[in-house]
Amino acid sequence: MAREKIFNDPVYGFINIPYGVIFDLIEHPYFQRLRRIKQVSLSHYVYPGALHTRFHHALGALHLMTQAIGVLRGKGVDITEEEATAASIAILLHDIGHGPFSHTLEHTLIAVPHERLSELFMEALDEEFGGALHLALAIFKDRYPKKFLHQLVSGQLDMDRMDYLSRDSFFTGVHEGVIGYDRMIKMLAVYDNELVVEEKGIYSIEKFLIARRLMYWQVYLHKTVVSAEQMLIQVLRRARHLALAGVELPCPPNLWYFIRHEVCEADFEKDGNRLLAYFASLDDYDVFSAVKSWINAEDRCLSYLSYGMIHRKLFKLEFSAQPFSETYISSLRERLATWWGGVDGDLDYLLVEGRERNSAYDIDKDEIKILFKSGAVGPMSKSEDFEVRARPVEKYYVWYPKELKK
Amino acid sequence: MAREKIFNDPVYGFINIPYGVIFDLIEHPYFQRLRRIKQVSLSHYVYPGALHTRFHHALGALHLMTQAIGVLRGKGVDITEEEATAASIAILLHDIGHGPFSHTLEHTLIAVPHERLSELFMEALDEEFGGALHLALAIFKDRYPKKFLHQLVSGQLDMDRMDYLSRDSFFTGVHEGVIGYDRMIKMLAVYDNELVVEEKGIYSIEKFLIARRLMYWQVYLHKTVVSAEQMLIQVLRRARHLALAGVELPCPPNLWYFIRHEVCEADFEKDGNRLLAYFASLDDYDVFSAVKSWINAEDRCLSYLSYGMIHRKLFKLEFSAQPFSETYISSLRERLATWWGGVDGDLDYLLVEGRERNSAYDIDKDEIKILFKSGAVGPMSKSEDFEVRARPVEKYYVWYPKELKK
Amino acid sequence: MAREKIFNDPVYGFINIPYGVIFDLIEHPYFQRLRRIKQVSLSHYVYPGALHTRFHHALGALHLMTQAIGVLRGKGVDITEEEATAASIAILLHDIGHGPFSHTLEHTLIAVPHERLSELFMEALDEEFGGALHLALAIFKDRYPKKFLHQLVSGQLDMDRMDYLSRDSFFTGVHEGVIGYDRMIKMLAVYDNELVVEEKGIYSIEKFLIARRLMYWQVYLHKTVVSAEQMLIQVLRRARHLALAGVELPCPPNLWYFIRHEVCEADFEKDGNRLLAYFASLDDYDVFSAVKSWINAEDRCLSYLSYGMIHRKLFKLEFSAQPFSETYISSLRERLATWWGGVDGDLDYLLVEGRERNSAYDIDKDEIKILFKSGAVGPMSKSEDFEVRARPVEKYYVWYPKELKK
Amino acid sequence: MAREKIFNDPVYGFINIPYGVIFDLIEHPYFQRLRRIKQVSLSHYVYPGALHTRFHHALGALHLMTQAIGVLRGKGVDITEEEATAASIAILLHDIGHGPFSHTLEHTLIAVPHERLSELFMEALDEEFGGALHLALAIFKDRYPKKFLHQLVSGQLDMDRMDYLSRDSFFTGVHEGVIGYDRMIKMLAVYDNELVVEEKGIYSIEKFLIARRLMYWQVYLHKTVVSAEQMLIQVLRRARHLALAGVELPCPPNLWYFIRHEVCEADFEKDGNRLLAYFASLDDYDVFSAVKSWINAEDRCLSYLSYGMIHRKLFKLEFSAQPFSETYISSLRERLATWWGGVDGDLDYLLVEGRERNSAYDIDKDEIKILFKSGAVGPMSKSEDFEVRARPVEKYYVWYPKELKK
Repeated sequence: MAREKIFNDPVYGFINIPYGVIFDLIEHPYFQRLRRIKQVSLSHYVYPGALHTRFHHALGALHLMTQAIGVLRGKGVDITEEEATAASIAILLHDIGHGPFSHTLEHTLIAVPHERLSELFMEALDEEFGGALHLALAIFKDRYPKKFLHQLVSGQLDMDRMDYLSRDSFFTGVHEGVIGYDRMIKMLAVYDNELVVEEKGIYSIEKFLIARRLMYWQVYLHKTVVSAEQMLIQVLRRARHLALAGVELPCPPNLWYFIRHEVCEADFEKDGNRLLAYFASLDDYDVFSAVKSWINAEDRCLSYLSYGMIHRKLFKLEFSAQPFSETYISSLRERLATWWGGVDGDLDYLLVEGRERNSAYDIDKDEIKILFKSGAVGPMSKSEDFEVRARPVEKYYVWYPKELKK
Repeated sequence: MAREKIFNDPVYGFINIPYGVIFDLIEHPYFQRLRRIKQVSLSHYVYPGALHTRFHHALGALHLMTQAIGVLRGKGVDITEEEATAASIAILLHDIGHGPFSHTLEHTLIAVPHERLSELFMEALDEEFGGALHLALAIFKDRYPKKFLHQLVSGQLDMDRMDYLSRDSFFTGVHEGVIGYDRMIKMLAVYDNELVVEEKGIYSIEKFLIARRLMYWQVYLHKTVVSAEQMLIQVLRRARHLALAGVELPCPPNLWYFIRHEVCEADFEKDGNRLLAYFASLDDYDVFSAVKSWINAEDRCLSYLSYGMIHRKLFKLEFSAQPFSETYISSLRERLATWWGGVDGDLDYLLVEGRERNSAYDIDKDEIKILFKSGAVGPMSKSEDFEVRARPVEKYYVWYPKELKK
Repeated sequence: MAREKIFNDPVYGFINIPYGVIFDLIEHPYFQRLRRIKQVSLSHYVYPGALHTRFHHALGALHLMTQAIGVLRGKGVDITEEEATAASIAILLHDIGHGPFSHTLEHTLIAVPHERLSELFMEALDEEFGGALHLALAIFKDRYPKKFLHQLVSGQLDMDRMDYLSRDSFFTGVHEGVIGYDRMIKMLAVYDNELVVEEKGIYSIEKFLIARRLMYWQVYLHKTVVSAEQMLIQVLRRARHLALAGVELPCPPNLWYFIRHEVCEADFEKDGNRLLAYFASLDDYDVFSAVKSWINAEDRCLSYLSYGMIHRKLFKLEFSAQPFSETYISSLRERLATWWGGVDGDLDYLLVEGRERNSAYDIDKDEIKILFKSGAVGPMSKSEDFEVRARPVEKYYVWYPKELKK
Repeated sequence: MAREKIFNDPVYGFINIPYGVIFDLIEHPYFQRLRRIKQVSLSHYVYPGALHTRFHHALGALHLMTQAIGVLRGKGVDITEEEATAASIAILLHDIGHGPFSHTLEHTLIAVPHERLSELFMEALDEEFGGALHLALAIFKDRYPKKFLHQLVSGQLDMDRMDYLSRDSFFTGVHEGVIGYDRMIKMLAVYDNELVVEEKGIYSIEKFLIARRLMYWQVYLHKTVVSAEQMLIQVLRRARHLALAGVELPCPPNLWYFIRHEVCEADFEKDGNRLLAYFASLDDYDVFSAVKSWINAEDRCLSYLSYGMIHRKLFKLEFSAQPFSETYISSLRERLATWWGGVDGDLDYLLVEGRERNSAYDIDKDEIKILFKSGAVGPMSKSEDFEVRARPVEKYYVWYPKELKK
């Protein structure tokens, strides 16, 4: 009877998916695989509800895209059926290139950024679906004249951000991250082929920027989350170190392949589809299952880190507005050497320095444009009503075993 | 069986009120009267759900006070039972001095600010309850050494604001106004007898300030809301003008008294309790019922304004970042004179200029203090993590019949 | 830019109203008047948030109608634009005949049921709008062949019930009344011109029936609510008694008219539109403003009841599954006579017996029909999955001053 | 500063956990392991948000226990600090015996019911914590005189059910499952050492029973969920069949152990703690990771089932109110044999018959008792206000590859 598949989404109530190419893409193993990749990696070590997946996020962003297209059409913007489907496909697949634990392992497991992998997946699917993703690819790569379609997929106010903020705040329970996505979408318009916001939407945008910044520091870059993610990175770095030294570890073969080889973009040039399918077989389950088995590894460093990862015995992470002094780092390293005893090479996996950075609104990159009641269009940062400072906040961190501080 | 009265509150779920003096104050006609005074006046002309009352707000603020006291005690702050009750009474009665339509008619109906009237009510109740409100009055007037108790009642982060933002956003449906009141309360602490916020609460505070500013421009100072409120003010100004000129209008006697007399603070010095009781008999019902009957008034100006007020035929309101030019105002006034025809004195009730102003965070008045992890305490505006600009936004407006623009 | 007016609704988020006849009807004073009539009368004496109006309910029901029509069309049911508009108008105006305090005063203030008054209003508006409500009237009166359109307006699963349950549970905070209106609407279908429900919607329907019954006993027929409403009825009965005896009371003239005359349906036959306009000028404000002034009435009984009504000093109300014995009632009446002293005629306004009755699902009236997966259609009560008993619950009550029990 | 650890819970807002034995139990690897066991197994194949874990559920149930104890104490019920802690521990650990995919694999992976395993875990922890769980065990096993403490852990109205209904409806987005847990808890009382419900809570209880039944058929026993779970069971049955036949499969060693051995209760008698620790190392990750690798297994049947499990190519599941006829089953089996070709032994893993059963309220087992206003106590099913039928609903099912129906 129905022409649409209905998904229950606690965030939006219901999501309607039209049967046809979009539904078929969702059914494809490449997409189903996103069911096994958590959206916010190890944030659930702080917010136990945050177990939602890239699968759910992609459906949610698709849902918002449908709404945005409806609103724009209602304002007289010309969007053909074909363009609507293409924009929907582009948002549905925008994150399909993510591997296990999303951003956390992005540069550890494979030396290709997820956006590029998404393109590779879309190209492979385009082939498989007989060219049905052609227009979607053009929009995704910002090579289509109606630039606003790309901006709905990737821009300051894209459906990706609107969904992930709504979804992540829902599942973490951090209500301050809640945004008025419905109001914001109703305020969207198009001017000169670019996405603009009606003037009366300015406070909602402001709230959205603040909510986003808040989610960064309260969730994505939460001290304990960063600490947990660092641990997972070091576990995998250590495993690779051992693998390259010829040590055999219990591990699902697909994961083992990516640990032993540092796959880079060039590798996809020859026999790309096979490599892609192999990458597509990876997910959070393989990684955690392997890490669990490494608790019993002979290598003391790998075993220690793996135990901490699984049983949530995390390292201390200190944040600081300024870089840490060399003296401080040296003293930590000395204490670590004493406490750990012996093997010097281990220390690089047990004490790590780094930096995180976020700004509410990056003015230089992609200015939000306001459609004033007068009919003029101008950058939001020039509006008198706008109060959010664009200054980025930068934080340095150092990460090391809690035992050093006892 | 129960030792507490339970109220259903869609905002917080349940509110528990201990039997005793607090419950008895709630039962008092002076407090029950707040059931008939809407919290946000005529905002329901834009947001039809915003019919909630000062009564509900006061209960809500009391509920948050109970939580705040619990949190502070949990952190070792010494608050005696007597102080807790007094602070609860102070927040419960902080708005008891509001008259019909709260702020809208505050300076039209009576020339005494509502805070002063709240004090007068509390003093009268203190007498009636045999001195039981003594400490509450000291806290309310900021004459008690534990200054943080006053700050919980009235300050940058008081329970009043936390409740009204939560409540107003709930009943208007403006979700962007939602604040994380529970998290903010959990972050409160006391340092040197003053209220401070733990450092990790800084993003929540920022969100709160932005939410508050947003509620100002989206709800409290919404163009149509300001227009509706202006109409009510002019209706009452006109009625007083007629009353002072000896015209008799149908009107409940208590309201008629305050229309004929411009009651000021001095009037409360002699026979204050009787005057107070008379004021306490006023509510939104009297005003709207009178305005409704004035639709049939002989005076054309009063009738016109009253009809517009009741049937929601509102005037145009223009906002501008700069003051309107004299030329513009003159031209409007001329058009008005032509359109209205004749009686010049009427025009002052049909064309009004004014100004509204709001800043997210008024730095000069009462700085929010942060308790840093280091143990130091300092003003929030100095923190590197803080991004909200304190610059106030000011808007000028002019208000006149829509017919002038046709 | 927009072709629709957007209303904020905390229950549904946003409500879109198309400009045109529907919007014009909303702007009409007859409809605007519903802004001043509370949806659930005096329920706010128990649930302080329950101040929402018939205005808001009507918009909400219209919103659900739009959704239902969309769902049915999506399943191939033929509904023309004209029919869609007519069904929308019918649901928008279904309650326009309600007077002050809705059901509470339905038989006290005027001897015409609100459904009949709604018809009279619709007929008057049809005249004023040049026949634009013709089809809407046919649907409202169930004289249109596509019977399911009437059932969407008035039936076991109409948009009226779905909205009022959602809305009343939202504003009271009685979360148990929450229903899955969106899922239920998605399960609607049409079979043989009648509304049916797809089999998999059966549990939602069951939940809806239970939620409705729960709302009856927990809100609409809550002991204290019934007590408050009884008090308002007796105030008005007493005022009429005095008025008919020639006593003059302070009162807005429109209300006074309906107190002095027991208007019945026949009165609308001659000069109906004028009487209707007069009735339309009544609202909650008049009633409460009058009752407030009657606190100072000379008649002791009226004054006593009015004081209790305004200051919420309510009478005791006892519920019982069986009728009260004559002995018990006599003994109460005797105590009342002693306590009140003197005037015997007063007692009929101070001690009242009555009965309330509710069943989750009235099988005999209008069976819900299920569309089974097999394609067959049958009554829900026959389904094996259905567990709600249809037995009505009946409760007797007696109402009298609390002083009698002290 | 704080004496409590705060968890964010999107369901309840915040959960406060006192530092001490309860916090230490949460930190224990046996409990942390519940982070890797989904609460509702494969329900996320229908409701993508339903990825929440036993860990989160246990914290939530603990939170409700704290509230229930507070309410009962507020009504004068004597509960010592020691008893409160013990009841909290009992509810925290009530599900600790669950293995991977909870109920789904309960009888497939190990022949010991999860309740017995919970006891074994609690006994082991009691040993490790020096007897600190002694009282908790007595309460858990219903050997403590204050029977109501056990009933809060396990009974018709226990904190387990209240949490799982609230939580599962939250994460699935099936709003009809929402219950008024806060109101229900406020209605709890104790009479004669047993848990009873105040009369005015009867409608909430009814709603709760209906919501529970609804969740069974709409979520837990949803056709597609049962189909997915059946697939997982058959995958593991097949793997065991192969293992017992001497086939080696890629598999984490802990999981392989439980596949090769059908561990039963007696096995825990000798060297129980070691076996328990081994069982405790199992989680959802091992199972899914293994199943993923079995897609490439040589055994065609295992490979086919594993592929379907991972890529969500599920079998058809037919429900019926009556048992399926032998003729029908035979015909299916024949078609299956033809389609699958060859190996007869495979068919038992590809076509399965079964039965599910649920009743809203099982009267015989553990009647809910009502404390009437009169002071009397009686079973709820006798109350006139109670309308839910206790009749259990039973459904038969048959499960087989979709290809048979094409």
